[in-house]
Amino acid sequence: MEIAKFSIPEIIFGRGAIKYAALCTKRLGGERPMVVSDPGLRQAGWVSCLFEVLEKEGLQWCYYEDVVSNPRDTQVTKGASFYLENKADVIIALGGGSPMDAAKGIAIVASNGGRIHDYEGANRINRPLPPMVFLPSTAGSGADISQFAIITDTSRHLKMTIVSRTLVPNISIIDPLLLTTKPHNLVLAAAIDALSHAIEAHVSIIASPFTELQSAKAIEIISSYLPRAYQDPSLEVLEALSIASTAAGMAFSNAGLGADHALAHSIGGMFDTLHGEVHSILLPAVMRFNLDWALPKMAHIGRILTRKTWKSDRKMALLGIESLENLFLSLGTKQRLREIMPDPSYLPLICRMAAGDICLLTNPRPATWEDLLSICEEIW
Amino acid sequence: MEIAKFSIPEIIFGRGAIKYAALCTKRLGGERPMVVSDPGLRQAGWVSCLFEVLEKEGLQWCYYEDVVSNPRDTQVTKGASFYLENKADVIIALGGGSPMDAAKGIAIVASNGGRIHDYEGANRINRPLPPMVFLPSTAGSGADISQFAIITDTSRHLKMTIVSRTLVPNISIIDPLLLTTKPHNLVLAAAIDALSHAIEAHVSIIASPFTELQSAKAIEIISSYLPRAYQDPSLEVLEALSIASTAAGMAFSNAGLGADHALAHSIGGMFDTLHGEVHSILLPAVMRFNLDWALPKMAHIGRILTRKTWKSDRKMALLGIESLENLFLSLGTKQRLREIMPDPSYLPLICRMAAGDICLLTNPRPATWEDLLSICEEIW
Repeated sequence: MEIAKFSIPEIIFGRGAIKYAALCTKRLGGERPMVVSDPGLRQAGWVSCLFEVLEKEGLQWCYYEDVVSNPRDTQVTKGASFYLENKADVIIALGGGSPMDAAKGIAIVASNGGRIHDYEGANRINRPLPPMVFLPSTAGSGADISQFAIITDTSRHLKMTIVSRTLVPNISIIDPLLLTTKPHNLVLAAAIDALSHAIEAHVSIIASPFTELQSAKAIEIISSYLPRAYQDPSLEVLEALSIASTAAGMAFSNAGLGADHALAHSIGGMFDTLHGEVHSILLPAVMRFNLDWALPKMAHIGRILTRKTWKSDRKMALLGIESLENLFLSLGTKQRLREIMPDPSYLPLICRMAAGDICLLTNPRPATWEDLLSICEEIW
Repeated sequence: MEIAKFSIPEIIFGRGAIKYAALCTKRLGGERPMVVSDPGLRQAGWVSCLFEVLEKEGLQWCYYEDVVSNPRDTQVTKGASFYLENKADVIIALGGGSPMDAAKGIAIVASNGGRIHDYEGANRINRPLPPMVFLPSTAGSGADISQFAIITDTSRHLKMTIVSRTLVPNISIIDPLLLTTKPHNLVLAAAIDALSHAIEAHVSIIASPFTELQSAKAIEIISSYLPRAYQDPSLEVLEALSIASTAAGMAFSNAGLGADHALAHSIGGMFDTLHGEVHSILLPAVMRFNLDWALPKMAHIGRILTRKTWKSDRKMALLGIESLENLFLSLGTKQRLREIMPDPSYLPLICRMAAGDICLLTNPRPATWEDLLSICEEIW
């Protein structure tokens, strides 16, 4: 084993954990937190719930919600100015992957200056960020756990991947009650995103025993709860998915991702698709592409997904991919790229961009843009 | 599930990871680290190896090694003065549980003043500690991961347990090469200590899915590697034990321990016994005492220890305890309290002190000092 690094935030988990937001802010030295959220969370009542918690402890918050799904460079720039104008000292993100990634981008630009584009890639942040307290409202993105931030470059129409240990929030407050106001389709999409994190991290070339333990557990929980996430996301189901998504976040943050996410970023940057909807199309195809380059681990995934044991690793790995395809089919998720893209003529550009995504570096099988194109043509 | 908290240090793991000590110190803002170690590590060459790493990066270290097994309050006091006199700014601990716990004690007194006794119990540290980089040289104590520090009160002849989130080091650098110079009996004792951490954390009343994943994995790895830890601790074995001990540390730091550790602290405080040698005597008896108060989890432990599956939880739990006793017997570890204590007349005092140990608060079955006495008499 090479040197393995494992870094996660402090985690506070449980129903009603939102009540700890003010104490955590104060513990990090904050008096004037900037809250980043979105209109959906505000309408669901969670933003005012958070304000009450902060006010009870005498904290002077300011509020920013100019954040869309697949958050944009322009929103980060405005948010960073807002942070500085309000003399904020802690960033609290409340929401799904989008408000959390926007908050990370704001933290970078507010403390390190320049444009968010300057930090694309790995380890390009030099100065310390403001303390961050994140409250995820979906069980999927793992942004509250991870070293990753994904921001859309609106001029190039692509998603920039920014990776740095300093992007791990200080404290992640995971309250499954926040998930109860999300529509079922978003719960499902987030869970599939988390499953993709877990599977890609599990076979990553820099996976370690610390990440493999987490990714295997996440695959086990999500695959068994996915049908209920779709039909009847009770609080028990949401809690299990939150635990699994957190485990998947610990895994991928430290092991990286793969070709599925490289393509998903590139597709999402161009067509503004819901990130969680792309994986049911891409993931099985990427797993087939990687099959022989990570056979024992793919077989292990197959055993978890099917709860069966065959002698042959190859047989087991293939059964796993099939069972995943059947699961996605039963959930009615998207199956072909043509469902989210107008025309196959975009594919070469998408694959060229994906070939430059940092996620591809940890994919078990090296992939050129032509390899990615073959994958995409197969699932057109 | 109640609110669960999970906090661990940043981890850098792997053969040769000691080379990161200087960069980690600098990243935490350190220029003048105080190194805490012991004569054994110095004689094995690891202290000078660390000095070289620090000097290469231009760091001005100072060195403290007045630390014995079961580190003492007096050594903490002297160490804190040494830290302040040398205007140190980071504490690097290199060693087993003793130098690491001493380093934690020094960090507390140097930054918060007073005597180490003032901080006995939970959450009594108010001011921030100096940044801490820990390099464990045994796979057992988990002190590089945990919120615990155990310091001997030399006047009362007992071990004080100090628990605080701020005692989690900033960075744990786990280099399995450091274990290669330890005598076999210490490797074995440390591994049994880690196994006891994992088992007690697994059945703790504040265990969470985050800690249970880690404790179950630790039990699995340690129980399968223990025979080789005794006969032939190859680098592969030491690496596996390091991974397991780290997992056990993540579990017990966040879930707490139980009656085995409460008694072990009290016995160790009075007779200065090697901490890892006490668990082979205490652990099976404590597991029997707890049996019906944590039956499904005890059965799960039984399944891990025996690799067997019976329908009855009770049968499975009992088989687990028996297999653990047989394992200890085959390793030639101590079996009865009379082997480490001169006379049973000490038992009432030991049990009264153990009843006040913070570890007892998370034991699945409430225990009075008389309950503890029954356990001890049974294994006299």
